[in-house]
Amino acid sequence: MPVGTNATVKAMTPEDLIAVNAQIILANTYHLYLRPGHLLVEKLGGLHRFMNWQGPILTDSGGFQVFSLGKLRKITEDGVCFRSHLDGSSHLLTPELSMQVQEALGADIIMCFDECPPATADYDYVRRSQELTTRWARRCKDVHQKEGQQLFGIVQGGMHHDLRARSISDIAEIGFAGYALGGLSVGEEKEQMYGVMEFCAPILSQNSPRYVMGIGAPEDLIEAVYHGYDMFDCVMPTRNARNGMLFTSQGRVNIKAKQYEEDDGALDEKCGCHVCRNYSRAYLRHLYRTGEILASHLNTYHNLYYYLNLMQQMRMAIKENCFTGFRREYLRNQQINTDG
Amino acid sequence: MPVGTNATVKAMTPEDLIAVNAQIILANTYHLYLRPGHLLVEKLGGLHRFMNWQGPILTDSGGFQVFSLGKLRKITEDGVCFRSHLDGSSHLLTPELSMQVQEALGADIIMCFDECPPATADYDYVRRSQELTTRWARRCKDVHQKEGQQLFGIVQGGMHHDLRARSISDIAEIGFAGYALGGLSVGEEKEQMYGVMEFCAPILSQNSPRYVMGIGAPEDLIEAVYHGYDMFDCVMPTRNARNGMLFTSQGRVNIKAKQYEEDDGALDEKCGCHVCRNYSRAYLRHLYRTGEILASHLNTYHNLYYYLNLMQQMRMAIKENCFTGFRREYLRNQQINTDG
Repeated sequence: MPVGTNATVKAMTPEDLIAVNAQIILANTYHLYLRPGHLLVEKLGGLHRFMNWQGPILTDSGGFQVFSLGKLRKITEDGVCFRSHLDGSSHLLTPELSMQVQEALGADIIMCFDECPPATADYDYVRRSQELTTRWARRCKDVHQKEGQQLFGIVQGGMHHDLRARSISDIAEIGFAGYALGGLSVGEEKEQMYGVMEFCAPILSQNSPRYVMGIGAPEDLIEAVYHGYDMFDCVMPTRNARNGMLFTSQGRVNIKAKQYEEDDGALDEKCGCHVCRNYSRAYLRHLYRTGEILASHLNTYHNLYYYLNLMQQMRMAIKENCFTGFRREYLRNQQINTDG
Repeated sequence: MPVGTNATVKAMTPEDLIAVNAQIILANTYHLYLRPGHLLVEKLGGLHRFMNWQGPILTDSGGFQVFSLGKLRKITEDGVCFRSHLDGSSHLLTPELSMQVQEALGADIIMCFDECPPATADYDYVRRSQELTTRWARRCKDVHQKEGQQLFGIVQGGMHHDLRARSISDIAEIGFAGYALGGLSVGEEKEQMYGVMEFCAPILSQNSPRYVMGIGAPEDLIEAVYHGYDMFDCVMPTRNARNGMLFTSQGRVNIKAKQYEEDDGALDEKCGCHVCRNYSRAYLRHLYRTGEILASHLNTYHNLYYYLNLMQQMRMAIKENCFTGFRREYLRNQQINTDG
């Protein structure tokens, strides 16, 4: 899911998103709640109409941004009191308000309000936080009522497998349309993250969509799909694009680098995207260096195409029963080129 | 001609330019000479291939930017010595080098290197400058040799009709494929600018394209076409777009304004462009306020569509022999709405 924080996937039009085969996008409840406000979006016909995107949309609960962007947070049983990163205004975000905001925005899939502790939190903190997340999940389920809108539960528990197991059992007992792993990609080691994904997969519901929130690098997605996860969101393809870091079949390319100054070749010879078929590395470098908006657009277009094409390839490999080989091949290719 | 300073019309892809009916674009010699360098562009197949634009391109001579952006300029008979606004490096731009750079860039139409004095220059300065521009024009003509590339002459002379007359006669005597009025829209009053356009039109070649450089507002283009000019370039539609100032059939719209906060209507009900057909004023305001790249893109798309549609309407009005009525109607409409 490309991330469209402020009701726009940065530097992309809805037509561009269709062209790169985006099937669903994510929008951020925290940002839209603060600006332009969920009631205004509702008044204007909901998020789909507001941003002219007819495909599915998932909104997060606002929790993650409250913890990463909000100032002077205070967590109570009721919810989280925080100050806006925009104007310092004071807000209390509760499970009930999160549901209300997400219903007003009108996404197709919405998320429970959870607490996402930092990777540095100790066992006791994470345990209490996991329990709080369960109580908040029940409150979300209790008040959610918008028909046709699916509510997903979020599993917390940090890097502690016992807490993850308890969270999965708690959240499954409440019962949701889909299940997400939260609290990953928050600063932990890759091995820890992969360990949690591997541990949780067999005990998560086998008949519901499984979503790993906030990941990740292409190899993370492959690892997650390998363990049986279905959905992902991450700013990496779009944010890295705007910083000139591009994903290719030959590994990552820093398009700012001097070595591409006179490079007339495509960014990725093996890529079929519009950017790789029409522009040279030298031109992409020039656009980046001159700070042109087209740099952000073309780079984002390519990176999203790369990610969504990777997902498409994984779906095909699964259908053709050759995912394990695909995974080995992909990681080897990237390894060779990263080393080289 | 939409302005594509750094080999890109800001916030637009070549496909977008085609969609708004751009028939020719302008690129800046000064900027491309400094970065990425004309020899590199030539090596990469010329400007058309470099930026993936197959339509016609016009490059200016570099003169205007040397005077407006270059630091520590020193003008001699030979050319202009200046320091780059990017890194302070020292350069001598001469008529011969301007031809060399523009030939390397490979535009379809290129411009003579001229001196563009400020609106505040006194009569004597403008007279000497006009004479220098004539001598430089001859040197440009003498060295230009790229086949299929048209060289246009530039008329100077400030706001002084006698100097304009002399410049037209001097430049016509050398003989060029087209003629441009330079030195307008440099800070003078509109009446002065319109006066020069009106004065020059009857004595300019009747059988060559006539180009007024660096204008302008929609009403300026109407005034210029009224006097018989054919070509124009200006950053106004693109730069204003990025600042949230949009042109509509109902006058100018400052999309930042609070009054559009909940406005579900199209930016311009009478406009058939993609932006007006798919987005609300409220969404455009939201994108602008959140600093989203899509704001620059959608605003630029609309403004260029507006300008190019205005030119199209003028061509039709001329063909149907009702230009005078069209002009009156347009100015009245804008007047009413500006007053209102």
